[in-house]
Amino acid sequence: MDVLEAMYTLRAIRRFKPDPVPDELVWKVLEAATKAPSGGNRQPWRFLVVRDPETKRRIGEFYLEGWERFYGGAAREQMLQDPARARIYRSADHLARHLAEVPVLIIACLRTTPWPVTTSERGSYIFPAVQNLLLAARALGLGTVLTTLHRVREKEVRELLGVPDDWETMALVPLGWPAVPFGPVRRLPVEEVVYWERWGETRSR
Amino acid sequence: MDVLEAMYTLRAIRRFKPDPVPDELVWKVLEAATKAPSGGNRQPWRFLVVRDPETKRRIGEFYLEGWERFYGGAAREQMLQDPARARIYRSADHLARHLAEVPVLIIACLRTTPWPVTTSERGSYIFPAVQNLLLAARALGLGTVLTTLHRVREKEVRELLGVPDDWETMALVPLGWPAVPFGPVRRLPVEEVVYWERWGETRSR
Repeated sequence: MDVLEAMYTLRAIRRFKPDPVPDELVWKVLEAATKAPSGGNRQPWRFLVVRDPETKRRIGEFYLEGWERFYGGAAREQMLQDPARARIYRSADHLARHLAEVPVLIIACLRTTPWPVTTSERGSYIFPAVQNLLLAARALGLGTVLTTLHRVREKEVRELLGVPDDWETMALVPLGWPAVPFGPVRRLPVEEVVYWERWGETRSR
Repeated sequence: MDVLEAMYTLRAIRRFKPDPVPDELVWKVLEAATKAPSGGNRQPWRFLVVRDPETKRRIGEFYLEGWERFYGGAAREQMLQDPARARIYRSADHLARHLAEVPVLIIACLRTTPWPVTTSERGSYIFPAVQNLLLAARALGLGTVLTTLHRVREKEVRELLGVPDDWETMALVPLGWPAVPFGPVRRLPVEEVVYWERWGETRSR
């Protein structure tokens, strides 16, 4: 698949078919992830592939806790009143309550020591790889969504999976065959978010 | 270009031809950047395109300061003794001393307020877009490299470009026609960085 087509149709998938994902495809998307850049080519990442039902169940509980904390209660009512956001809200709510049923959960881990993260923004070491993962999955017809809500119980997730203290779980990516279609992503017009020479200086294309 | 081919040949480019980059190609790579996911589809990003020689000169000074701080002195001697690292070191050193000569500098900015960044790792809001930018540039034959060294003088860079206090410059991406070839990236074997079910549980492919 063309690289731009993959990007332009990489809709977040939050509803999945129960069909299993073959190992060979898991390897493919993860090998693509490892081709990403990282500062000094340090590759300070590990990717955990979780398919065990009990492990997924417990991760799902942590994830739901994060979902409820940030998107439950008042936020819920507010989101559901906006028709444009209500559709996404319901889909994200569905994922939060059914995470354990997604065939594969991939957890992207980052080593937290020992280099100058003070200036080099540690997210730069892991999210390019995560984006490669999402794009490669899209090219294979597999659905994904980039999530971080499990991090409200990050320490417990690490304990569950045996992740050492000097590593951190930065993202959780559900992976499976989509039960909803891919399609064009909705974004702001590029002219609104690109400035030329100085902040605020927009141009028409 | 095929999405996997773009990823597998996305070698960091640190030497550029002086030839200008047409606006239309800058728009293309930045539109691709904006197609990336971000939590709640917030798109809390702006991309600054800098071609003004004086602005590039000053950014180049800040960048060189970061380079010298982290890779000058003792680090320099150490890196140059390792043949595998010496080549990359010299190329990164060249970039640090010639940044102002790169035709285009793109600065990816992230809004730092107001959502729950405590759990959601703010890097997840900007580096997927930066990776899209790099991949789209690769597909067009344009070279890039993901850098963050300007951040040793992040406040001064913001002042120079008029970036408001509630935004941060997260990455600096030089963009231009490569003076060196693209080619296969060198990474650890995927089998070494993928664990199955639990930390440390590797498998052969």
